[in-house]
Amino acid sequence: MTEFDWPIRVYYEDTDSGGVVYHSNYLNFMERARTEWLRELGFEQDVLAADFQCIFAVHSMQINFRKPARFNDALAVKTILVKVSGASMLFEQKILRDNELLCEATVKIACIDTTEFRPRSIPSFLMTGMQGEH
Amino acid sequence: MTEFDWPIRVYYEDTDSGGVVYHSNYLNFMERARTEWLRELGFEQDVLAADFQCIFAVHSMQINFRKPARFNDALAVKTILVKVSGASMLFEQKILRDNELLCEATVKIACIDTTEFRPRSIPSFLMTGMQGEH
Amino acid sequence: MTEFDWPIRVYYEDTDSGGVVYHSNYLNFMERARTEWLRELGFEQDVLAADFQCIFAVHSMQINFRKPARFNDALAVKTILVKVSGASMLFEQKILRDNELLCEATVKIACIDTTEFRPRSIPSFLMTGMQGEH
Amino acid sequence: MTEFDWPIRVYYEDTDSGGVVYHSNYLNFMERARTEWLRELGFEQDVLAADFQCIFAVHSMQINFRKPARFNDALAVKTILVKVSGASMLFEQKILRDNELLCEATVKIACIDTTEFRPRSIPSFLMTGMQGEH
Repeated sequence: MTEFDWPIRVYYEDTDSGGVVYHSNYLNFMERARTEWLRELGFEQDVLAADFQCIFAVHSMQINFRKPARFNDALAVKTILVKVSGASMLFEQKILRDNELLCEATVKIACIDTTEFRPRSIPSFLMTGMQGEH
Repeated sequence: MTEFDWPIRVYYEDTDSGGVVYHSNYLNFMERARTEWLRELGFEQDVLAADFQCIFAVHSMQINFRKPARFNDALAVKTILVKVSGASMLFEQKILRDNELLCEATVKIACIDTTEFRPRSIPSFLMTGMQGEH
Repeated sequence: MTEFDWPIRVYYEDTDSGGVVYHSNYLNFMERARTEWLRELGFEQDVLAADFQCIFAVHSMQINFRKPARFNDALAVKTILVKVSGASMLFEQKILRDNELLCEATVKIACIDTTEFRPRSIPSFLMTGMQGEH
Repeated sequence: MTEFDWPIRVYYEDTDSGGVVYHSNYLNFMERARTEWLRELGFEQDVLAADFQCIFAVHSMQINFRKPARFNDALAVKTILVKVSGASMLFEQKILRDNELLCEATVKIACIDTTEFRPRSIPSFLMTGMQGEH
């Protein structure tokens, strides 16, 4: 399993008046990282949607917020594809500042048909592209 | 000209680590108020989009951030339609906490065709509905 | 256990280009509901922070996104306090549109000291106020 | 005057159900660019706040939304410091996709004292650092 590493800088927009990153923004950071992971594999989601009627939706997640990130922090999002089945993918993602673990999640992603907005199987070329990653 | 008043509560998600509402969130508050103003007149934007291919986009705005709002503040957004022409509307909007002016903007909204994403004229029934307001 | 019901309207800011509410925004809706639940019990979080050095942070959550909410939907967030212990609270929250379940989560909230940003025990008056709720 | 160029990728979180970037998010993109411009000059805003009681707040802006950005677009934010006076800075910022202008703004930034949250003069070392830029 290959770990994909994506840097995120914390801006004011990401923080709240508690002085730390607002909790739901870690989910955004994780989605940015999954998007860049797909791009690294050669897949652009706008193309997948337009040409293959395939979009991804978060099905469920378990997330632990361990320590707060703060304004101006340089974070790393680590992403591993744990499992891929017919219509879904399972990721483990961690957010770190230097070597300190701030946040970790298990995220299940469903492949959805853009026209009917229902689960569908992952296109085979995409499945093949992801096989080497887990 | 009728002034429309919409209450907004400030939650953590709206604030930043400076301890105040993050500046771009005032634009969101103003759009919520314009949406509720339209609803008060009897127009639902999902219906306007689906049945009349009409959506609204912010064309331009001048905004002054005078004083900061803070977590847990109860704000009021005041909205006045200053002018409506063939394909656009001009609003004046103010955000207040009690009687204190925090933020004010002049906002030009364009009517856009949902299929071509180009300016189009405001449907006549909508124009009629807005006439009494300015 | 009393269920607390809080209405949320979906605005453009909450949606994404998939045509549905962006997944992390459900977490924001849930936090708004917990804030209003506390207010209903008589507790204002700005006062708790300023006078009692007590803020709340999301410790962890399990969340299932079942069906998408869309622009202009009128949603209800249902909140139940399942358990409260020395330094944390456990909530079950559901988001519905009419009677349709869209999203559900189990959310653990930690009480944090504002000065040291470490877990601390929930003030006793707050504990007492919450006792009747679970 | 030196133009500073900062790349921004559009993610799902930035878009709305109209299929385009939600208007207030361009303000966030512009603030990210101003933050990176300051960093390029050698100034970190967390240090300016902690050691020099100096934070920046948007005082006012005029913004024109010309064409929509879409999911997955690779944008460039161009930033020019037009003027700097005792307690404020004036920026011109443009957002482009390839060579197409999507959005442009004139942004006035005020220097604010972190303790009193009032306008204050820009520290002289910061003023000196910015002198070469306009």
